[in-house]
Amino acid sequence: MVPSRLRRTARGAAVTLTDVPRLRLALAQVNPTVGDLTANADLVASWTRSAVEQGAELVAFPEMVLTGYPVEDLALRPSFVSASSEALVALAGRLRDEELGEVPVVVGFLDRCEHDLPRLGRPSGSPQNAAAVLHRGEVLARYAKHHLPNYGVFDEFRYFVPGDRLSVVRVRGVDIALAICEDLWQEGGPVSASRAAGAGLLLVVNGSPYERGKAGVRHELGALRAAEAGCTLAYVNLVGGQDELVFDGGSFVVGQDGAVLARAPQFEQTLLVVDLDLPAAVEHDDLDEVELSAHGGTVFSIGRVTLPASDAAGDRADADAGPRLPATGGLAPQLPDEAEVYAALVTGLRDYVGKNGFRSVVLGLSGGIDSALVAVVAVDALGADAVHGVSMPSVYSSEHSKDDAADLAARTGLHYRTIAIGPMVTSFLDNVELTGLAEENLQARVRGMTLMGLSNQEGHLVLATGNKTELAVGYSTIYGDAVGGYAPLKDVPKTTVWALSRWRNTVAAERGETPPVPESSITKPPSAELRPGQLDTDSLPDYALLDDILDDYVEQDRGAAELVADGFDPALVERVLRMTDLAEYKRRQYPPGPKISLKAFGRDRRLPITNRWRESAPPA
Amino acid sequence: MVPSRLRRTARGAAVTLTDVPRLRLALAQVNPTVGDLTANADLVASWTRSAVEQGAELVAFPEMVLTGYPVEDLALRPSFVSASSEALVALAGRLRDEELGEVPVVVGFLDRCEHDLPRLGRPSGSPQNAAAVLHRGEVLARYAKHHLPNYGVFDEFRYFVPGDRLSVVRVRGVDIALAICEDLWQEGGPVSASRAAGAGLLLVVNGSPYERGKAGVRHELGALRAAEAGCTLAYVNLVGGQDELVFDGGSFVVGQDGAVLARAPQFEQTLLVVDLDLPAAVEHDDLDEVELSAHGGTVFSIGRVTLPASDAAGDRADADAGPRLPATGGLAPQLPDEAEVYAALVTGLRDYVGKNGFRSVVLGLSGGIDSALVAVVAVDALGADAVHGVSMPSVYSSEHSKDDAADLAARTGLHYRTIAIGPMVTSFLDNVELTGLAEENLQARVRGMTLMGLSNQEGHLVLATGNKTELAVGYSTIYGDAVGGYAPLKDVPKTTVWALSRWRNTVAAERGETPPVPESSITKPPSAELRPGQLDTDSLPDYALLDDILDDYVEQDRGAAELVADGFDPALVERVLRMTDLAEYKRRQYPPGPKISLKAFGRDRRLPITNRWRESAPPA
Repeated sequence: MVPSRLRRTARGAAVTLTDVPRLRLALAQVNPTVGDLTANADLVASWTRSAVEQGAELVAFPEMVLTGYPVEDLALRPSFVSASSEALVALAGRLRDEELGEVPVVVGFLDRCEHDLPRLGRPSGSPQNAAAVLHRGEVLARYAKHHLPNYGVFDEFRYFVPGDRLSVVRVRGVDIALAICEDLWQEGGPVSASRAAGAGLLLVVNGSPYERGKAGVRHELGALRAAEAGCTLAYVNLVGGQDELVFDGGSFVVGQDGAVLARAPQFEQTLLVVDLDLPAAVEHDDLDEVELSAHGGTVFSIGRVTLPASDAAGDRADADAGPRLPATGGLAPQLPDEAEVYAALVTGLRDYVGKNGFRSVVLGLSGGIDSALVAVVAVDALGADAVHGVSMPSVYSSEHSKDDAADLAARTGLHYRTIAIGPMVTSFLDNVELTGLAEENLQARVRGMTLMGLSNQEGHLVLATGNKTELAVGYSTIYGDAVGGYAPLKDVPKTTVWALSRWRNTVAAERGETPPVPESSITKPPSAELRPGQLDTDSLPDYALLDDILDDYVEQDRGAAELVADGFDPALVERVLRMTDLAEYKRRQYPPGPKISLKAFGRDRRLPITNRWRESAPPA
Repeated sequence: MVPSRLRRTARGAAVTLTDVPRLRLALAQVNPTVGDLTANADLVASWTRSAVEQGAELVAFPEMVLTGYPVEDLALRPSFVSASSEALVALAGRLRDEELGEVPVVVGFLDRCEHDLPRLGRPSGSPQNAAAVLHRGEVLARYAKHHLPNYGVFDEFRYFVPGDRLSVVRVRGVDIALAICEDLWQEGGPVSASRAAGAGLLLVVNGSPYERGKAGVRHELGALRAAEAGCTLAYVNLVGGQDELVFDGGSFVVGQDGAVLARAPQFEQTLLVVDLDLPAAVEHDDLDEVELSAHGGTVFSIGRVTLPASDAAGDRADADAGPRLPATGGLAPQLPDEAEVYAALVTGLRDYVGKNGFRSVVLGLSGGIDSALVAVVAVDALGADAVHGVSMPSVYSSEHSKDDAADLAARTGLHYRTIAIGPMVTSFLDNVELTGLAEENLQARVRGMTLMGLSNQEGHLVLATGNKTELAVGYSTIYGDAVGGYAPLKDVPKTTVWALSRWRNTVAAERGETPPVPESSITKPPSAELRPGQLDTDSLPDYALLDDILDDYVEQDRGAAELVADGFDPALVERVLRMTDLAEYKRRQYPPGPKISLKAFGRDRRLPITNRWRESAPPA
């Protein structure tokens, strides 16, 4: 039953095959909802049942699965922290009562540090980002996250007291060390402690948000840390959307030698079940109370728990129950770039709509590429019957715009109606003197009001259709096209909007389906159509060039002098950077949207509104 | 010239009068603008000139005065950090060139930590929140903030590398230790190091935002820390508005015995000049490289610099120039509660408008108390000629509403016009089926669009007039009354709106002026007037009761069970908490406004939008 070979344990000693227990591990890549303790406990119970049916001997759920993640200021609410702790205890009892108590289950939750003294600068109520091992109705071990990220989308110094003790749990003869997400990314702490503790498996529970290309980075990191810890590393991640974050799953197991042993697909709830040959635990009495130095002069200790069911030889309790089905783990293929981004948009939209209790969406269809792509994403996420498109032509709308909007509706099957905005625009112009830009904005605002009216009347969530490039330079109308509860393209540059549209059409063609995006929407020059003959290029540089500059300035935080040194025209650099600097207020008022890049407007970039700093490009 | 008495130095030795130098200290309580390095350097130069004219021997400016504060993500932009450092060096040279180089000047700025290695979790580019001593054209000493606040409105773990070295600067025979803001609030670090270093003065430069009643807390804290440091403590604070923060100044000096020796007024730029008798420095060679333990296992060392002009006896270089004018310090009276809050609103509005380059504001005048108070604050901040009020009656507007709006305009002298919204509302209702709540919201949105049209056409900033109570429970129309660039009452509960209105009228009466707020706006029952006979009490509990519950739930983070235990009706608690929980998206979309409370919606409270957590009140 155990492979007949020699292997090297983490301690470096050659051991014979009887020293190598095989553990069937199930990583439950699930999609909880922030604050819904009841539904999240149901999720844990139901996926634990599946894991047990597949013979799992250890089940692991992601970071803070019981509360959802991130909980933001809920962490500072004592009634919520208490509710989380009580829900954990209740969940342990429920698993036992449902005859799921024999399998140890690792569950992320929100804990309270009992030994922390209140101090200014520490989060009120001493909450901790923690994981517990549930077994036979009891909470047997707890581990609190040591490394707290406080950059990008993370604010964990604000919310959590760091843990200072590694939990090592002996399960069926294998010592398993626990870690939580950022513990893997920063040097020192749990990873090095795992090596010192002689762990046979480092089990990391994660809430790691999607960024374009991050899956590969996680694999490299996992391999590096497995080598540092001197053992196999298992990584279980959340999946699903939570406000501006999209969790992509992609859970995996990597050997000490860096080989990826199993990988779950991205953007799907799934159970990754894998049989692991792991070194048998040896006694480490000398290490039990060792203190290891961690970063910043702090110390980190090791705590051990042995599950009552386990035995050192690693024989399974059910070893006599006959042969089991093979583990269902495998190596899910990694998605190519456009497929990955598109899946993130679909996942983010589906969960934002569903978790906020909406059943349908409404959006304006201009015939342009942005609204076309948003409509197609919405149809893929929710089904055509839940998507309501509204064409709102004005006197400046071209015939091809109206045709392209109708064509899109026909291709996707979404609900389609036309509401001409002329009468409403005229009623304003008759009563308030509005000319020039004020008149252009008026048209966009009448459209926004119309959509909000339909939202109030019919219950749809309004989708804003602007893209990241427009948002960066402020090419939008506040309370106009910026109206909405969610903005699927908020973090998608214009050039990527085109790429995703082409990719989606290609996929459809390959499947023998109608390409959903009208070709004309992809190929025609972009226009806001708010005055006669208007084109985006009247106000903005060519989008390829613009996205290039914005990538440097926004994503990389590079200055004007560096951009000019790279060969960009100084006057153009100054113009684009100035537009970007002045648009902060508009960006703040924009609806949330799914983060796909390193720096998403919204959570990741927090500039002052009142800000007189202007980059000034040196002469060429 | 020096008082003839014995005093005890920080070292505890009795010394004679010749050991007690007198130092004329100037605290420059000024109002910089974030990002405007040139204007901020001008501010430092011009206030230094005033200080020198008043005989100051040491001038101190607030935290990050050169960059403005807080700079948020600008701290992570290498070009901005470099520009700040270069501006500091240029400022030192400029002060020398303008014959202001002999007086040491303490200037807060954004520095770069030269010795910090890049590491995940540390802010990119290693920025530091620092203060420098400029003298004779040189940057003679630098100190980086040790305690970094990361709660409430602060995110400093995200932005700064903490300092680990106290700067002690000998000026005219006195050892002066530097600290920055949070260094005073948290235990350990610079305060205890100042005692160990035998400092004669602890000089703290601050960017401490206003909160109701915080001035008294600062005095108590100053007295406590002066005792801990064993020396006099000088506290210089920013003044003015920056986005949602209002800095109230109130700089002060407190003796080692806790006596407040001088205090500047709140909400005004001013120079607080005070003569201090301070212990002469003694030699501390043994302490120079001592390492003190700070919190979290880190260490903190002491660095010393002696200014070339100083001499140990403390004689002034200009001692022979004849008698000087007395120092202009004094004890500004502390403002009573309403006066303080009102001044914060005026300051916040004035600076938000001015620093963002607007010259005028526009707002809707409904005849109700909220818009009346906002109009009066705006007139006090900007002058009546810069305030444009618009009455936008509908068929549901009462006669008294129209009368009260016109009365307000007459009392304040603001620009007033009437635009009836009937035609625009009708044009929507004729073209889109909108009934019930959708029709109510339509009216609010037509008003919002009208104001935005006037803003675009005439260049005014739109003020939103909603209060904190409405914002808490979501009693507002998104893209309707929530339209605006700034919301002066965003952090003002409804009951305080009434109290401030009455207070402002009383002040006017005391001055023999016309009370600006119409009495009827104060006394009539509040109504949104979006349907016939509508009153706020149709949808909301009595405001006094509502504000009471919201104070517990929002400011204190107390749970439903605690509120019920306090005697609130369980059904009412559940209803109010549910309304509050569901309004997060509306709150996120609301314009910025001045923070006056412990928990302002906006910067201080960050709840998930997607959040299924519901407090549930136990049965009574």
